[in-house]
Amino acid sequence: MSEKDSDALFLAPGPNMYYLSAFLEEPSERLLALIVPQSGDPLLIVPELYEEQVRTASWIENIITWKDSQDPNSVLLATMKQVVMKRPTIAVDSQMWSRFLLMLLALMPDARYLDASSVMNPLRIKKTSEEIALMTRSAEIADTAFTETVRECREGMTEHEVAAKIVNEMRRLGADSVGFEPITGSGPNAALPHYRSGDRKLQRGDLVVLDYGCLYRGYHSDITRTIAVGECDDERRKVYSVVRSAQEKAYQAAVEGVEAQSVDRAARETIEAAGYGKFFVHRTGHGIGLEIHEEPYIVAGNSMRLQEGMAFSVEPGVYVPGKCGVRIEDIVVIQAGKARRLNKCTRELVTI
Amino acid sequence: MSEKDSDALFLAPGPNMYYLSAFLEEPSERLLALIVPQSGDPLLIVPELYEEQVRTASWIENIITWKDSQDPNSVLLATMKQVVMKRPTIAVDSQMWSRFLLMLLALMPDARYLDASSVMNPLRIKKTSEEIALMTRSAEIADTAFTETVRECREGMTEHEVAAKIVNEMRRLGADSVGFEPITGSGPNAALPHYRSGDRKLQRGDLVVLDYGCLYRGYHSDITRTIAVGECDDERRKVYSVVRSAQEKAYQAAVEGVEAQSVDRAARETIEAAGYGKFFVHRTGHGIGLEIHEEPYIVAGNSMRLQEGMAFSVEPGVYVPGKCGVRIEDIVVIQAGKARRLNKCTRELVTI
Repeated sequence: MSEKDSDALFLAPGPNMYYLSAFLEEPSERLLALIVPQSGDPLLIVPELYEEQVRTASWIENIITWKDSQDPNSVLLATMKQVVMKRPTIAVDSQMWSRFLLMLLALMPDARYLDASSVMNPLRIKKTSEEIALMTRSAEIADTAFTETVRECREGMTEHEVAAKIVNEMRRLGADSVGFEPITGSGPNAALPHYRSGDRKLQRGDLVVLDYGCLYRGYHSDITRTIAVGECDDERRKVYSVVRSAQEKAYQAAVEGVEAQSVDRAARETIEAAGYGKFFVHRTGHGIGLEIHEEPYIVAGNSMRLQEGMAFSVEPGVYVPGKCGVRIEDIVVIQAGKARRLNKCTRELVTI
Repeated sequence: MSEKDSDALFLAPGPNMYYLSAFLEEPSERLLALIVPQSGDPLLIVPELYEEQVRTASWIENIITWKDSQDPNSVLLATMKQVVMKRPTIAVDSQMWSRFLLMLLALMPDARYLDASSVMNPLRIKKTSEEIALMTRSAEIADTAFTETVRECREGMTEHEVAAKIVNEMRRLGADSVGFEPITGSGPNAALPHYRSGDRKLQRGDLVVLDYGCLYRGYHSDITRTIAVGECDDERRKVYSVVRSAQEKAYQAAVEGVEAQSVDRAARETIEAAGYGKFFVHRTGHGIGLEIHEEPYIVAGNSMRLQEGMAFSVEPGVYVPGKCGVRIEDIVVIQAGKARRLNKCTRELVTI
């Protein structure tokens, strides 16, 4: 914090608060904040009804509570006055709802406000062995869910039905929740990279993108596989093979010390060489851990060097509008100098 | 907007953006914003990979895209310069991640920033008949999931297993997703109002709080029922009967024209009269619709008057620390002058 010139961290419910306090909760309209001054003890401002839960989950003893019938502004101002000096620099949680930053701006207009990511991300980006163990289990659940789901997938099932199977399977395997609503894009829907799922039925000749993940004790998995419904035509097979080869090239390029963007370049050059460059419209990957998307981003322009313990996705894709899409994604972690895949299930084209 | 003195709305992925643009997406680290100037056409700033999806979902034609390899700050600044005057007042989405408000603050330090809730909430608070129809279906799914789940609940099952049954049941019935991770607090865990679920097994004599809901085409349901595992003792039965009676009193008090806080008062007086006042640590309810918690809040101090079309929860509870908890919750909507329950399943104490 002193390096980043911050007098206090102001964190909201979510991954940063969980990382520092062990209290995990979703954001809501009620003021709930972890304040970490540069010197002195951290403290939590907590709606009264969360108090017992917070005391059970967290090691932080200094807890200020407020009631639903109180004005949280006055509680916040009184607390901030205790903690920080007159014109402080406050590093606020990147994901905190703007309503709380607007509250701070109104109460403390003279303060300087920074994005707390500059303090938190360097801590969170290198995973400990305990974190990697949880992410490995999270990835195993996603892998097994793939194997079990494709075993039951048939032509004529709707995308929604496929998504429901994936979700049920992950929960059965011990996932605490889904990390995000699964993507089960079939046929032309597979060409929309961030499609979710719909009522379209799987048809013979389709490629179907399955992209999903779970949360296991706070840690995300994220996997994408593309499957074929019956025999698919030559172009679709070619697209698949280009993406698979790009994914492998990017995986091989991910070694300690190289820039994040060089992993993106390895995937992109492979796809460009095959003539599909304009159909690869997103970055090659994103870091993962307590968040589904976090640093390091595997994207052109990111010169951050890969280090031991970094975990991220490698997920090139090709999307031919109105026709088909292919994406293949594994989570990898840098260990002993190079990338190791946490996802083990097949990258061969599976035909159902 | 002119009443609220706003030159532009700046909205993030979430309920407000969906309400105005019909494009539904989760917040993420990529800049995606709907800008609605007080005069002139609205426009969307969208990462390139979302473009096709946004054009399919939304009626908004003015779409500015940016690539993962570009700096979103420069796109944002150029766009804002086109849309607003020199020292504008910008109403920002209450739930927008602070990183984007910090971006705006850095790029346009002279602008005034307000919470867009003051513009959006009056629009969203009165539900149309189409919205009520979707919320009714969402509530029916939650009701049926209760009936089906308790049919299969047994002593010895874990809270996690009960939660999984609820989730599976709602998906089977057509829910698009769960609205939030279900609460299945058994025995002493039921005394933690915002507990989720754990490995504790249901034991004879327990009360178990089940609080969950689903999303159906963007609209939330939210229901709480408390069930007994085998016969429970006199105190637990008394607590149940106090909460049930408080819930009924609050329901009866919810008529058009009264203040929101009078509904809270009706519940609270009933619980206080029975000597459990200090164990009712939260407000009586919250509005619901595109969000699980929205206006009107049914809480002491809220003098907003109930109007036709408002939808909210009525959910008093009593929590005896370390021992037991009871909460009973229905969603109601003000129609023809008084509250009508969307949840129809029994409020009698169900014993499994």
